[in-house]
Amino acid sequence: MLPKFNILTPEQVQAVHDHTMKILEEIGVEFLYEPALEVFRKHGQKVDGHRVYFKREFVEEQVKKAPAQFTLHARNPENNLICGGEHIIYMPGYGAPFIHEADGTRRNATMADYDNFVKLAGASKNMHMTGGTVVEPTDVDDRIRHLKMIYSHIKNSDKCFMGSASGRERAEDSIEMAAMLFGGRDVIKEKPALICLINSVTPLKYDDRMLGALMAYAEAGQAMVIASLVMAGSTGPATLAGALALQNAEVLAGITLAQSINPGTPVVYGSTSAITDMATGSLAIGNPECALFTSASAQLARFYGVPSRGGGGLSDAKIADAQAGYESMMTLLATSATGINFVLHTAGILQYFMAMSYEKFMIDDEIAGMVLRYLNGIDFAEEKFAFDVIADVGPGGHFLTQKHTKKNHKFEMRRALLSDRQSYDGWAKEKLDTNARANRKWQEVLANYEPPALDAGLDEALKNFIEKRTAELLK
Amino acid sequence: MLPKFNILTPEQVQAVHDHTMKILEEIGVEFLYEPALEVFRKHGQKVDGHRVYFKREFVEEQVKKAPAQFTLHARNPENNLICGGEHIIYMPGYGAPFIHEADGTRRNATMADYDNFVKLAGASKNMHMTGGTVVEPTDVDDRIRHLKMIYSHIKNSDKCFMGSASGRERAEDSIEMAAMLFGGRDVIKEKPALICLINSVTPLKYDDRMLGALMAYAEAGQAMVIASLVMAGSTGPATLAGALALQNAEVLAGITLAQSINPGTPVVYGSTSAITDMATGSLAIGNPECALFTSASAQLARFYGVPSRGGGGLSDAKIADAQAGYESMMTLLATSATGINFVLHTAGILQYFMAMSYEKFMIDDEIAGMVLRYLNGIDFAEEKFAFDVIADVGPGGHFLTQKHTKKNHKFEMRRALLSDRQSYDGWAKEKLDTNARANRKWQEVLANYEPPALDAGLDEALKNFIEKRTAELLK
Repeated sequence: MLPKFNILTPEQVQAVHDHTMKILEEIGVEFLYEPALEVFRKHGQKVDGHRVYFKREFVEEQVKKAPAQFTLHARNPENNLICGGEHIIYMPGYGAPFIHEADGTRRNATMADYDNFVKLAGASKNMHMTGGTVVEPTDVDDRIRHLKMIYSHIKNSDKCFMGSASGRERAEDSIEMAAMLFGGRDVIKEKPALICLINSVTPLKYDDRMLGALMAYAEAGQAMVIASLVMAGSTGPATLAGALALQNAEVLAGITLAQSINPGTPVVYGSTSAITDMATGSLAIGNPECALFTSASAQLARFYGVPSRGGGGLSDAKIADAQAGYESMMTLLATSATGINFVLHTAGILQYFMAMSYEKFMIDDEIAGMVLRYLNGIDFAEEKFAFDVIADVGPGGHFLTQKHTKKNHKFEMRRALLSDRQSYDGWAKEKLDTNARANRKWQEVLANYEPPALDAGLDEALKNFIEKRTAELLK
Repeated sequence: MLPKFNILTPEQVQAVHDHTMKILEEIGVEFLYEPALEVFRKHGQKVDGHRVYFKREFVEEQVKKAPAQFTLHARNPENNLICGGEHIIYMPGYGAPFIHEADGTRRNATMADYDNFVKLAGASKNMHMTGGTVVEPTDVDDRIRHLKMIYSHIKNSDKCFMGSASGRERAEDSIEMAAMLFGGRDVIKEKPALICLINSVTPLKYDDRMLGALMAYAEAGQAMVIASLVMAGSTGPATLAGALALQNAEVLAGITLAQSINPGTPVVYGSTSAITDMATGSLAIGNPECALFTSASAQLARFYGVPSRGGGGLSDAKIADAQAGYESMMTLLATSATGINFVLHTAGILQYFMAMSYEKFMIDDEIAGMVLRYLNGIDFAEEKFAFDVIADVGPGGHFLTQKHTKKNHKFEMRRALLSDRQSYDGWAKEKLDTNARANRKWQEVLANYEPPALDAGLDEALKNFIEKRTAELLK
């Protein structure tokens, strides 16, 4: 593995930390959830209305309780994941309500799309888990969506997945289903099986829905990403340094709450901070400023000794074109080279998180494979220098037929899955652009995908639970 | 500026160096040009036929004579460039014989295309110079191409440009035209105005054409890139470490020759090493292995204390699609973050150097702007932390109308030139992909471009020189 690319000096990291502490002490953060305020009161923090003013020492002390890394458990233990340290976890996009078709047509995402993206992630060797809300399945009643989504992850793959963070009740349902899968709440309390995404409401707020979920997961010993999305110029300062301090204050406030509830709760420092396109006022994510936020966040998380989440294959494009390609590559390469551990939104995202695209998913899968190969670096073992081969071939000679070439090329050079490397004439037979090739490819992958078997009794039990809860929730 | 991303440990750099020295000492390099062999004989190196066996100390001593950085002079001194250190120089692609149209049609490149790319580079604020052989103008007789190409750079822009490296005679013509532009050979000997591209013939050879040019430029005190393109798996070992040592041996041999001829000659350590697509046997450049070669080369050049050249916006795609976008971004970001100074092929390249594309040029221009913004990093000046603004806005507030936002957003956030950041509905009015938008854009830029004025007397003198030389060369 390559060393991590640190874009900040230690002094800059310290400066962000100091400004963050000033924000937490003097401005404070609002928590719109009485049980959370109660936790802070009990821990001696000043609470005024919904606003909590933090003591610097308290925050620093709580953050220290978070583990530097943890294992997330999959139903197939071969797919267990370590989150933190040198490890990178890739997964599909999260939360998009729309699908953009290959020709740029937009439609609402459905449960069938949900299943498809879970399968595509299950089939990909670059996607380490199947993610969370891979799309918003808009054809399913909002009250029971979380049940169907969790079931889709369990049924269609045996990789790790995420739980619902839409309020305490849905969080509890998620935890219950994971407990069924692993043999009880006690089991997953020791071996976390779920991770959820907790978002602040920038600037400087947390709502009751997120706080309810945070508390449920913390109590159950499950993992969580605590993330802030500062839109520099609208929900945060237009200066990146200011936006970064604001983000940092929100994330540390959330981590402090989780550790106050259950010390040692596995938390991930999360950033989705990006910019506001000043021409339209809308979010813009596929840009160098977002890559800088991500890179800086990786380093802040290392400073605090916790795993990080940020970036992904981010794009504002509406179709899987050159822009989708270069924006995704910039953000995923910056994300990964600077050492982000948990990469939500690695594959499929278009139009600043609003849409998923099957074609973009396949493109990002290729990008992910390329980035992982880059991060693997160069093997400098003595025999790799191939001195004898170079001497044998000599000036003007050729290496193609050398044994050394046959022995090594597969390990040294990644094989492209989607990228075209033909001659012009070979390509010109069909003249397919990458969007068209990706369109063929995902259909092929889905057609050939066989989900891993799920124990029939467990499947039955899960279905019964969903049926019971559906009846209760739709009542 | 961000710190440079070092992908190798100092021990790995030393290991590459040691293996390189063993290659130079024990295998040697062939120079198919008697005057070059004579230089090495005079410097006490063992010459056997065309093969030169180098003493390690001699190579190390010669390489030390090369300057760490130098200034390249433009006819508009505001466009002078420093090559080396923290500086990055971007320019168009080099040497492609074909143009790929927006629909993927291929045709031969012409002199009109040449002028167009020089103008596009002249108009771009991300292209620091107009480059060299921006395309091969196949409609001009090969014997006089170099004259027309140099004239195009002088006439259509006042940025720095490259000279011909196709043999001693064309090199001398290039130097003569540059001398006319700057007021004589003595002037440019003190203030280098030209840089040329010298390529080895991998493995371990230099041909007479390149060596003739190298000697002409070295004698005239002009700058040169000395580059090696190892195709791992065919013209070099399939192992990246071996290919890197091979490349390093070739480049150091070339630098040693230049310094032996004229100590202090401005040289740039060049790498275009990439891989062989084992399925087709053809060159593949838009990949992580090529990015690794480039990144490692930047570091090797720093080790030797000379400026570096490598990478660019490299792609194997045939059309300006998602692959063109992600390959270009991977290679240009890796090139730039790891500290390459001189970036030939920043814009326009498709199909592993075989083609230039106008649409790809505009896409790469956007990519270059994004990468430069990323490298600019985050400004951590005290006022950028915006504490007072965050306090004034408070939890739940908004920053869009703050004075601080109006004052700062233009400096902090780069404005996209080509990327689409509209809402879906805005985009869906025309549904243009980036290829189509780029197609509009380059025509717009060309239509609005006015080349800087050129002194009429000088223009006349250059035309007379070209006329005279044309008559001689076509005789």
